[in-house]
Amino acid sequence: MASAKERSLNVRLVVEYHGGYFYGFQWQPNLKTVQSELERVLSVVLKEPIVPVYPSGRTDSGVHARRQVINFFCSEEPDLNKLIHAVSSLLKGELGVLRADIVPSNYNSRKSARSKQYSYWILNRRAPPTFHKGLALHLSKALDVERMNKEAASFVGKHDFSSFRGANCSAETTVREIYKSAVKREGDFVVFEIEGSGFLQHMVRIMTGTLIEFGNGNFQDRTMKEILETRKRSAAGPTAPAHGLYLDWVETKEGERL
Amino acid sequence: MASAKERSLNVRLVVEYHGGYFYGFQWQPNLKTVQSELERVLSVVLKEPIVPVYPSGRTDSGVHARRQVINFFCSEEPDLNKLIHAVSSLLKGELGVLRADIVPSNYNSRKSARSKQYSYWILNRRAPPTFHKGLALHLSKALDVERMNKEAASFVGKHDFSSFRGANCSAETTVREIYKSAVKREGDFVVFEIEGSGFLQHMVRIMTGTLIEFGNGNFQDRTMKEILETRKRSAAGPTAPAHGLYLDWVETKEGERL
Repeated sequence: MASAKERSLNVRLVVEYHGGYFYGFQWQPNLKTVQSELERVLSVVLKEPIVPVYPSGRTDSGVHARRQVINFFCSEEPDLNKLIHAVSSLLKGELGVLRADIVPSNYNSRKSARSKQYSYWILNRRAPPTFHKGLALHLSKALDVERMNKEAASFVGKHDFSSFRGANCSAETTVREIYKSAVKREGDFVVFEIEGSGFLQHMVRIMTGTLIEFGNGNFQDRTMKEILETRKRSAAGPTAPAHGLYLDWVETKEGERL
Repeated sequence: MASAKERSLNVRLVVEYHGGYFYGFQWQPNLKTVQSELERVLSVVLKEPIVPVYPSGRTDSGVHARRQVINFFCSEEPDLNKLIHAVSSLLKGELGVLRADIVPSNYNSRKSARSKQYSYWILNRRAPPTFHKGLALHLSKALDVERMNKEAASFVGKHDFSSFRGANCSAETTVREIYKSAVKREGDFVVFEIEGSGFLQHMVRIMTGTLIEFGNGNFQDRTMKEILETRKRSAAGPTAPAHGLYLDWVETKEGERL
């Protein structure tokens, strides 16, 4: 077997995946996850026994990725075009490789990420989705997008996001920095885009669930700023379902949007 | 049973549908078509025995519609919001009603259509579709979009489109007027948009198949103008598959884009 030491070649992939096919990114016993499928397929394609993959960050069960970044080590330089083709073919319709690069051996997907953008897609019309089944949350009642956008602006800056933290979140600190946060209408969709240094477990989904409360005319007694300041999960809205959420892209410390 | 004469109320619907669920628009014995499903569901919702529906034009088996226009007659004024909800729910994920209006009794979806736009979507990248399975044609090899757009411009104007006519086309005349025809790149997609007074059977798909030949660097010995002028189907390229094609919208004689 090839030992880890012989694997000096560091390969970075940009991948997209449909969250509906996976129990999240991280490996779990007996469950199909992005990590387990990628490692299984890379092992086949590279003919190496075990190929651990390292993501820019995990995504939860059901969450989609448009441009997730991972890296792995191998012992021989692979044909990158063949690698893109082979991995995409073996995981056809579930995960696709959009880009592959050889990167310096000290490159680490998580540490090299300066910021990430997530977006949450709501199909806001009477008819349920035809072309976006499982790819957007459907809400029939017209949302007050202006109000949602106003409240979403309160997320920008460095804050303690304890109010927007999932119950099982294991992060040591709850302070994160948000660079951009906005809600806009795009045709029949209402889209929440948020860019930040990092995110707590379920953070964007709880933010979305809270924005939807404002959009529905609820939460008349509070503002997003107040919800943030309470640092209590109970002050925020429910966790929006996973299938409307996308990891859009990851930006490196050098400012490259992958 | 209610007779046709009692049905003086004319209702127009704008609908979207996923072509993959239907054997085209038109009723066919023992096959699930857009017409048969709409008529079945409208009969249930309106509690009327048979509710014939009239489209702006048929779409072929497998072709999608973003905004197809149909009309039907009924005897009592329906609650349009309930109608949208009920029909969309009964055909959930396959067909959705985007809009419903009461129109003058002499309104006819086909005759009132001044123009229509179709678009053909090609996912032009190495990885197969993850979020657009069955919703775009996948071509791995990079297409020459500039060349395609140049050749597509030849369709504009009033021409005899015999070269782009399906073998089973029953149209009496082969002259149609095209108002707009262009190919552009949108991210990983190459999109062919064509607006015209009307289209022959398979016309847009044969046009697309021919444009792909140019985009692949083939057909060095001819131009689109020459293919048009031969009036021979054999001079054009193959018929592109149905699942990349969308009826985008229908414009009325009054200039309203439905």
